[in-house]
Amino acid sequence: MALIVQKYGGTSVGDTERIKNVAKRCIAAQKAGHDVVVVVSAMSGETNRLLKLVSQITDRPNEREQDVVVATGEQVSIGLVALAIQAQKRKAVSFLGHQVRITTDSTFSKARIKSIDAERIVDALKKKNIVVVAGFQGQDEQGNVTTLGRGGSDTTAVALAAALKADACEIYTDVDGVYTTDPNMVPAARKLERISYEEMLELASVGAKVLQIRSVEFAMKYKVPLWVKSSFTDDPGTLVCEEDAAMEDVLVSGIAYDKNEAKIAIRGVPDVPGVAAKIFGALDEQSIVVDLIVQNVSKDGRTDVTFTVGKADLTKAKDVVKKIAKAVKAEGVETDDQVSKVSIVGVGMRNHSGVAAKMFTVLAGAGVNVQMISTSEIKVSCVIHSNYTELAVRSLHTAFGLDKQEAAQESEVVSLKR
Amino acid sequence: MALIVQKYGGTSVGDTERIKNVAKRCIAAQKAGHDVVVVVSAMSGETNRLLKLVSQITDRPNEREQDVVVATGEQVSIGLVALAIQAQKRKAVSFLGHQVRITTDSTFSKARIKSIDAERIVDALKKKNIVVVAGFQGQDEQGNVTTLGRGGSDTTAVALAAALKADACEIYTDVDGVYTTDPNMVPAARKLERISYEEMLELASVGAKVLQIRSVEFAMKYKVPLWVKSSFTDDPGTLVCEEDAAMEDVLVSGIAYDKNEAKIAIRGVPDVPGVAAKIFGALDEQSIVVDLIVQNVSKDGRTDVTFTVGKADLTKAKDVVKKIAKAVKAEGVETDDQVSKVSIVGVGMRNHSGVAAKMFTVLAGAGVNVQMISTSEIKVSCVIHSNYTELAVRSLHTAFGLDKQEAAQESEVVSLKR
Repeated sequence: MALIVQKYGGTSVGDTERIKNVAKRCIAAQKAGHDVVVVVSAMSGETNRLLKLVSQITDRPNEREQDVVVATGEQVSIGLVALAIQAQKRKAVSFLGHQVRITTDSTFSKARIKSIDAERIVDALKKKNIVVVAGFQGQDEQGNVTTLGRGGSDTTAVALAAALKADACEIYTDVDGVYTTDPNMVPAARKLERISYEEMLELASVGAKVLQIRSVEFAMKYKVPLWVKSSFTDDPGTLVCEEDAAMEDVLVSGIAYDKNEAKIAIRGVPDVPGVAAKIFGALDEQSIVVDLIVQNVSKDGRTDVTFTVGKADLTKAKDVVKKIAKAVKAEGVETDDQVSKVSIVGVGMRNHSGVAAKMFTVLAGAGVNVQMISTSEIKVSCVIHSNYTELAVRSLHTAFGLDKQEAAQESEVVSLKR
Repeated sequence: MALIVQKYGGTSVGDTERIKNVAKRCIAAQKAGHDVVVVVSAMSGETNRLLKLVSQITDRPNEREQDVVVATGEQVSIGLVALAIQAQKRKAVSFLGHQVRITTDSTFSKARIKSIDAERIVDALKKKNIVVVAGFQGQDEQGNVTTLGRGGSDTTAVALAAALKADACEIYTDVDGVYTTDPNMVPAARKLERISYEEMLELASVGAKVLQIRSVEFAMKYKVPLWVKSSFTDDPGTLVCEEDAAMEDVLVSGIAYDKNEAKIAIRGVPDVPGVAAKIFGALDEQSIVVDLIVQNVSKDGRTDVTFTVGKADLTKAKDVVKKIAKAVKAEGVETDDQVSKVSIVGVGMRNHSGVAAKMFTVLAGAGVNVQMISTSEIKVSCVIHSNYTELAVRSLHTAFGLDKQEAAQESEVVSLKR
């Protein structure tokens, strides 16, 4: 007998038929002898519908009030899921964020969970209920409704699993696990049986949108075993867990890409202390998130500073940077929104040298020019021209031995038949 | 400087343009020097949309979970109204039922308000906010979401006005006041400037759907002056208040009708103690609301018991009554769903005799057969064949002097021109 937290995303509860299917899955887990807590998102399209109403009222919504509006999406879902479970003759009860004291800070629209009081859930489980909890929402210490940002239901599920000391947290979504790379781009992409928290974190942060980053951080911090599964199949999915020896034997676990970046280069910046602080301080003041930063060694007392931002922030960032460039007497500002970031991720890198070098060799061999490079302990990222994204990802996927075994065997069989 | 509670119904917040208009009205009241609390309903159609989702899941929804779903309609409205006020450069803050401790009993889907803690609203008003409160919803003592039943937002508004000791409660709707009868049926219907709580109560209970009955009871109990106004015009509307001498001079203030009734007659019931208790006890067990009850004097130890129920309950009521009729050895059961109830209402009746007699004379003169009669201190109701509803209402309206003065004058003008 275990305690399992299941989380169903918007497509899994997209209509009332799918909601009945979710109810079936929850009941199956209970029949298998488990205590079941279910976290649900808003029905797909609902959050966007609500945000559209808000945008018809105002361009610059107060985030407290916007949270009041958008939090209703999950509220509708929990009621419907509880009703669907009851219609299948099992006990169920729904709870809103504030009813199980999911307490957050007051950063409306992207609040962070501070604490959860699991008592009411434990009581309801003791009475043989399947407990249905609204994802994405909480309340701050003044009792205001808060939301956790896009994908926040993942974080609700993991935080509940941690608070309840659950045996597992299962994230049900419309894909059947975590892949070595985007299967839409690379047909040979392989589903991973297991992946470490850190690798998942790097993959998530470089654009593999299976899980919200914060939920993975939470799972890592509280050592919650996290399963990514499909709500439409019975595939076992991918387990995100602590790394072990077997994982370290694999050099590269996955390849991610992000087409949503833009590059800004400030040419001929006087190489004196404090210039970088001025540039990135000014960007931070405008809430512009900077990703990669590269500064070359200086020449004749001047250097080039290059960095990337989200494409949506490019115009705003350019304005900020141009002012600073003038103030510090830099030679000029160049921007480029035709770039992509391609990253290889793997805990095995820690104990192996030459992984970055191999990446550059593979890219060079494919004729892909590398514009910027950034590395972490378990990741190497390269910024390249966006036209080469697919070529780069496919070449790296093959070179680092990630292509599907079955695919390879199948092609052999095909060869034999010829 | 006064404290005003305004309530806007579903059609008044039916789309984002109308919501902006509501914001304008709230701001106008604040600019006139008042503290303003606004209660809003769900956008028109929204509650039905949510109930449809529920019905797609199950025929017999658990009412706790249904309340969780339908309470979201008002939550969306308060966020949008607060945003619309802010977009017009005034301070606003929204509150859900539980956030201002609108505590109810646990009768889900038709809960009754037990108490309100107005402190948070008073604080927000002091900070110059227009305070926007969700109608229709509260929470019980265990912290469960409850709803107050159709029209419950009226009750929220009046209860808030009572708790805040407001100077007035203004109910904005899609009609511009309370009429002497349904203006769609009787073009000569006249808007009333004032009406007493008790008359309003009788009119509401006999089918004039301007205000929820409970809200009028609340207003009467706490002496809250209640204005019924249109949110689309600047008409002063109708004031519902305590009765005064002038009101008592008027014999009949209004005429109501209800086409939604059905009649059940049990013929030849043995006239022994306890039979009526058996019949109406059994109906009550099935939650069937009985309206008029008439029992004739007995003849040969047997009597006829006739009563009315809502048309929707007829089949269920018939089944119950047939069983009882058999058990008590009655002669038979007859039903008729082609009936209407027509009522005349007025506090002046208390001090005048002959009002009922005049009603019967008028109906007889128009050839309308009266099937059942029921009277209260300030009301006389007759059940008639539904085909005669319009004829009865129009005849009574003219006979009791309620026809529009203007209408009469207009027709004179027309005559002169000929």
